[in-house]
Amino acid sequence: MSTLHTLILNCSLKTKENISHTQALTNYSIEILQDHNVSFEIVWLADYNIGYSTNDDTTHEDDWPEIFEKVKAADIVIFATPLWIEEKSSIAAHVIERLYAESDNTIKNGPALFYNKVGGVLITGSEFGAKQAAQSILHALSHIGFTIPPNGDSYCICKDCETSVDGKAIKKMSNNLVYFAGLLKDYPIPAEESSLEQI
Amino acid sequence: MSTLHTLILNCSLKTKENISHTQALTNYSIEILQDHNVSFEIVWLADYNIGYSTNDDTTHEDDWPEIFEKVKAADIVIFATPLWIEEKSSIAAHVIERLYAESDNTIKNGPALFYNKVGGVLITGSEFGAKQAAQSILHALSHIGFTIPPNGDSYCICKDCETSVDGKAIKKMSNNLVYFAGLLKDYPIPAEESSLEQI
Amino acid sequence: MSTLHTLILNCSLKTKENISHTQALTNYSIEILQDHNVSFEIVWLADYNIGYSTNDDTTHEDDWPEIFEKVKAADIVIFATPLWIEEKSSIAAHVIERLYAESDNTIKNGPALFYNKVGGVLITGSEFGAKQAAQSILHALSHIGFTIPPNGDSYCICKDCETSVDGKAIKKMSNNLVYFAGLLKDYPIPAEESSLEQI
Amino acid sequence: MSTLHTLILNCSLKTKENISHTQALTNYSIEILQDHNVSFEIVWLADYNIGYSTNDDTTHEDDWPEIFEKVKAADIVIFATPLWIEEKSSIAAHVIERLYAESDNTIKNGPALFYNKVGGVLITGSEFGAKQAAQSILHALSHIGFTIPPNGDSYCICKDCETSVDGKAIKKMSNNLVYFAGLLKDYPIPAEESSLEQI
Repeated sequence: MSTLHTLILNCSLKTKENISHTQALTNYSIEILQDHNVSFEIVWLADYNIGYSTNDDTTHEDDWPEIFEKVKAADIVIFATPLWIEEKSSIAAHVIERLYAESDNTIKNGPALFYNKVGGVLITGSEFGAKQAAQSILHALSHIGFTIPPNGDSYCICKDCETSVDGKAIKKMSNNLVYFAGLLKDYPIPAEESSLEQI
Repeated sequence: MSTLHTLILNCSLKTKENISHTQALTNYSIEILQDHNVSFEIVWLADYNIGYSTNDDTTHEDDWPEIFEKVKAADIVIFATPLWIEEKSSIAAHVIERLYAESDNTIKNGPALFYNKVGGVLITGSEFGAKQAAQSILHALSHIGFTIPPNGDSYCICKDCETSVDGKAIKKMSNNLVYFAGLLKDYPIPAEESSLEQI
Repeated sequence: MSTLHTLILNCSLKTKENISHTQALTNYSIEILQDHNVSFEIVWLADYNIGYSTNDDTTHEDDWPEIFEKVKAADIVIFATPLWIEEKSSIAAHVIERLYAESDNTIKNGPALFYNKVGGVLITGSEFGAKQAAQSILHALSHIGFTIPPNGDSYCICKDCETSVDGKAIKKMSNNLVYFAGLLKDYPIPAEESSLEQI
Repeated sequence: MSTLHTLILNCSLKTKENISHTQALTNYSIEILQDHNVSFEIVWLADYNIGYSTNDDTTHEDDWPEIFEKVKAADIVIFATPLWIEEKSSIAAHVIERLYAESDNTIKNGPALFYNKVGGVLITGSEFGAKQAAQSILHALSHIGFTIPPNGDSYCICKDCETSVDGKAIKKMSNNLVYFAGLLKDYPIPAEESSLEQI
């Protein structure tokens, strides 16, 4: 089987130097990915300056192209987000806007950009919005072409993720992400199904 | 490739004898399934008496076991629902409660019941809730073990579905449902990944 | 101040004879309502046969008219619902469909039916969907004319509501429901603002 | 009646110099507010640099304090947001995170900060997510202390808002916002109901 690569988008509002529960949860998933010999990279989004998808302001820098190259190179993309007022972070919302705009640009000219990639979600927080945040991200990914394997989300409803994380759920999610990414590598969705133009 | 079977759960509040926009939309999907030689059955849920998942009332009949057998026999399950006050119908909510209860019963004793099945959603209505209804159903299906292919939902925001339906979206959804159901028939998720007990 | 009346719609899937966490949570709210001399009635929806809003089946009985009279007579309406697969119960969805259909019928001919009533939500469950369920119900109520006071929802994320209920949240919600119901009794929304026809 | 003041938070991703459908919709609401002699200010959020609520980065400027003063001075706060991938804009999400953090800071020490303010939402877009975006914003506002009047949201599902806007819905929303803001100015929620500490 060819090598698989995972991109983890850490959507914490905190920069990398700071402790993040979201990262603690992510580490559990990474251990399982490594058992499957899947390579990975974590992008800590709060460390980047990301412009808006309708950017009409050319005076500010925009780090999005660098992040977008990493998305394109990945077989598996995992959003890891804390909850704020019981929703995904505004950074998660911001990056989804950018992915969507890319999807819109490319879908007209060939196979859909994100076909044959699989998506998952890790949620941290003590609040009541885990389901809604997971739904929102997974549906957005599905809408632009990602495949969502069974049990594509894991929650960590805790203050101290080190001890109380739901290991079974993360293991199932991580195993399924790897299984489907491998399957789509070997048996990609036929071109005529991934292109709007040809339909 | 082995034969695939699709179950379409029509969640209209209207009984079969009555005209339903939801059925009109469904017919588009069926044509594509037939092109792929996929067999199908439509279950018109309003025609059944379905008890509640916590049923403590044994004096009323419960048609659920009959419907559940049909779900178990299907490779592809499509929810077709109208929108009411901008949400999926209460019949759709009711059947999801029953599927979830079944999932809970069986997941402890072996491979997850709904693994290797794929799920999709067809939405009819002139209201603004299509995304939320689609999200809700697809996430519930994913949560209990279904795979959600790319573009797993199609909307028909119209009063007259015959003329204004988004044929491209339905074609993409239907093609993807068939492709993934075939893939999972030939390459089922390994048993250790579909069983909570073994993890 | 004129007397206020509260209707509590218990949306548990269980019938009245059975123990319901939802009812345990409700009792906390009732104590506070009684401190304010507000009368109340609890309707245990699972005890009724409620038809669908598009009912084309006249062979079955429909208990809705009886429930609807109770809604019209109330100044405060509280939905009390358990979570199933992290959403409000299908019974809650069903009754909201009926309220919406009534709103649609009457809004054309005079002041909106549900203006000057206030709405609240009590949620029980150990799952992660409390926010989404509360949002869904409160927005539906707002959409058909109810006023939503600050902190119009209370959650009880617990298996044993007797001991771990968030009493402060329920007290705030209950106090605010009573305050706004009294205010709207004394200062009702002017007729021209509650009628679509006159606008 | 004392003078009322409205703050309109334009959550478009575009800066002020650019044409925004969201602003076109907002103008309808402003006309009605002016008929009621309500003063108003529009804040075009894309023109500001707003830090994150957990800001650990003191090297960047943060315009939030200036915006927050405007919120505190307002009786009515209207969120006006476009839809992106069928959700509220990430700028709307970002500002809600900041309001929530402020609410958390102040609620411990006295009457809730946002009590006696009323909130509304204007949505622009051709997509299917209007309900979810409205729900999300209104519930967040309710959660931190705002009152939501009946029909507290208006949608404009159109490419050309000038011609196809739903004037009746905007008129109802705007009238109700003014009515409730006036009522709460004259009859504010008693202090013991707006303070968590005293409960």
